Amino acid sequence: MRKLLLSLTLYLFAGSLFAQEMVNTRRARIVSPEITKDSITFRLRAEYATTVSLTGSWQARGEFPIAMKRDANLVWNVTIPNPKPDLYYYTFNVDGTSVCDPANTSTDRDGTTYRSIFLIDGDLSRHYKDAAVRGNVSAIWYDSPTIGAKRKMMVYTPAGYDDNKKAKYPVLYLLHGGGGDEEAWLSLGRAAQILDNLIAEGKAVPMLIVMPNGNSNQIQSHINDIPGQEASTLMQNDIQSDLYVTSLIKDIIPYIDSHYRTIAKKEGRAISGLSMGGGHTLRTNYLFPGYFNYICPQSTGAHPHNQKTTSYAFDEDTLYKYLEGIKKAGYKLFWLGCGDVDPWFAEAQELDRLLTQHGMPHTFYVTGGGHEWKNWRHYLDTFAPLLFK
Amino acid sequence: MRKLLLSLTLYLFAGSLFAQEMVNTRRARIVSPEITKDSITFRLRAEYATTVSLTGSWQARGEFPIAMKRDANLVWNVTIPNPKPDLYYYTFNVDGTSVCDPANTSTDRDGTTYRSIFLIDGDLSRHYKDAAVRGNVSAIWYDSPTIGAKRKMMVYTPAGYDDNKKAKYPVLYLLHGGGGDEEAWLSLGRAAQILDNLIAEGKAVPMLIVMPNGNSNQIQSHINDIPGQEASTLMQNDIQSDLYVTSLIKDIIPYIDSHYRTIAKKEGRAISGLSMGGGHTLRTNYLFPGYFNYICPQSTGAHPHNQKTTSYAFDEDTLYKYLEGIKKAGYKLFWLGCGDVDPWFAEAQELDRLLTQHGMPHTFYVTGGGHEWKNWRHYLDTFAPLLFK
Repeated sequence: MRKLLLSLTLYLFAGSLFAQEMVNTRRARIVSPEITKDSITFRLRAEYATTVSLTGSWQARGEFPIAMKRDANLVWNVTIPNPKPDLYYYTFNVDGTSVCDPANTSTDRDGTTYRSIFLIDGDLSRHYKDAAVRGNVSAIWYDSPTIGAKRKMMVYTPAGYDDNKKAKYPVLYLLHGGGGDEEAWLSLGRAAQILDNLIAEGKAVPMLIVMPNGNSNQIQSHINDIPGQEASTLMQNDIQSDLYVTSLIKDIIPYIDSHYRTIAKKEGRAISGLSMGGGHTLRTNYLFPGYFNYICPQSTGAHPHNQKTTSYAFDEDTLYKYLEGIKKAGYKLFWLGCGDVDPWFAEAQELDRLLTQHGMPHTFYVTGGGHEWKNWRHYLDTFAPLLFK
Repeated sequence: MRKLLLSLTLYLFAGSLFAQEMVNTRRARIVSPEITKDSITFRLRAEYATTVSLTGSWQARGEFPIAMKRDANLVWNVTIPNPKPDLYYYTFNVDGTSVCDPANTSTDRDGTTYRSIFLIDGDLSRHYKDAAVRGNVSAIWYDSPTIGAKRKMMVYTPAGYDDNKKAKYPVLYLLHGGGGDEEAWLSLGRAAQILDNLIAEGKAVPMLIVMPNGNSNQIQSHINDIPGQEASTLMQNDIQSDLYVTSLIKDIIPYIDSHYRTIAKKEGRAISGLSMGGGHTLRTNYLFPGYFNYICPQSTGAHPHNQKTTSYAFDEDTLYKYLEGIKKAGYKLFWLGCGDVDPWFAEAQELDRLLTQHGMPHTFYVTGGGHEWKNWRHYLDTFAPLLFK
């Protein structure tokens, strides 16, 4: 009897050898980043490079890249003190070309830029880590007659949703900013991790999160447009902000309420967004008051939106009319978050002033920092526990 | 009445300026790759580099990188004739460091390696492009008592699934190879695009695709392990192939059949996998005959699997017993795909011989090429139309 002696070891060796298609010749493994209690070391093997530097999100805007030095093993490296607890990203610059850290398999994407990421653990960042029990995330294609296309959105359902077949859930509509897309709040914003953790700790009620694509000239993120394939971009010349907020009310909410077990009324709906998405948050409530009990714009304020012409003047009477509409429809929470060096801070202050002047209860949550994800993650982590209670 | 004159133009300008966090200074835009009818040009701006080369999946194994030249504008470039229609990936090497093409926003991931991609359109590759109507893809956390963890899998539901509330669907269980994870068939394998296209053309019946993580020491892909966060890896020392295939039968199939509208019997189930996943495909049917009517291993063959020791000898008697079990349980399609320069081609030939010798009807689908995604995509595109008919 002939024996088939090929072993599993050999089998797996071949599997990893071909990794699944191209051979990947590896030298001594580089550890990067290496995080200790006090410091973090970055390393890159680039034998033929003449200059290598490091740029990271812990740096102040405009700060110079951090020079790296080449050691005796031809590995470029630098050690810096740990920045304070948060999620950070960084890239290396090798002789003029920006690259992710090949030794760090974890990356995120900001628009069209990929970067390596790491986490410094601590109180502020603890909800950005994976929780032990997690909700599901789906890429959903829905029909938008308003925009005239089938479009993609991401939907988070909390742990337990699929098994608690009789429970109905509230929904947070969470909108991205300019340059972002339907995946921004999941990758850069850590929205699933934040809600998983808040729900596990009993700090937030289980809720769905709906993350549409807010660029009405796209059906989904541009990164899906492979060179050589027709682009998935809709051919529209105008920026159609109002078209998008209309589709949110007319197409997206009805889709969600008919395909998920939701609390399909104002009491079960919250809306938030950052920057352009903060504008969408306000604009939705200006044009369609009474849909949301929880209104949480971020890094935005009192400045106009209009799809017809960019020189349209937006007077205070009109804005008052809009605010009056929201006041009349009623709401439970109006929560405005902004950093004090955000370029929209003056507009946020102006909205705060107008809300006060108009007798509309609200929270103006001011932090340090500017127009950046470290704030937007923190804002979600801060207002999500206030929703649906 | 003071006018609030900030225009939408300014607003959007600021949004893109901050892109959502770090300023991205841009020079004249580089187009890369530029695809014409006959040729493809790659470009990279790397002013300070001394050598830049190109490596791509159209090259034969072991072929040298393609040298790029720097033009008067300090842009490195090279033009090559179009490879034949398919999906390809490539990277640049800048002074010893491998980088994705910064001008191409489309990338995929093979294990822990990111690469830029492009498509040469043609008959073979037409199903790898986005279809007009698409199914949804979800990341699902399910409980695996067999492995002792909550683990992630990806689930594709075809277009119409959410609206045809009474229809029941068959399920294809599609398994990745060594070095891969639950996302491999979606990114490298273009499984959603292939099924979207086949279903739209009426060539395949609407079906679910379930893509678990086949590494029983992981709860999900390693790329989610951010440096500074505890690893999500399960602490197991043994390769537990049998544990995984057991969890497929005991945990995954029951989860799918209780959470989706499936045809919950042999007639409604297919299984396929590549390389290690081809081994899992066979092993599942050896240990649990009668669960699948459609058995489609790829790039694998007659070689043993055993979790107890890697030196375990697997004799023909045992294999015959396994094949006898499959024959007795009955099946509708046994479809084995392999490339003629695949390192497992001899094992595939051996399995073909044993199936014939044992009187088991089957298809041995032999192509050119080796252990690579261009084959596995093509195999899925080829056998999916044969399922559930």
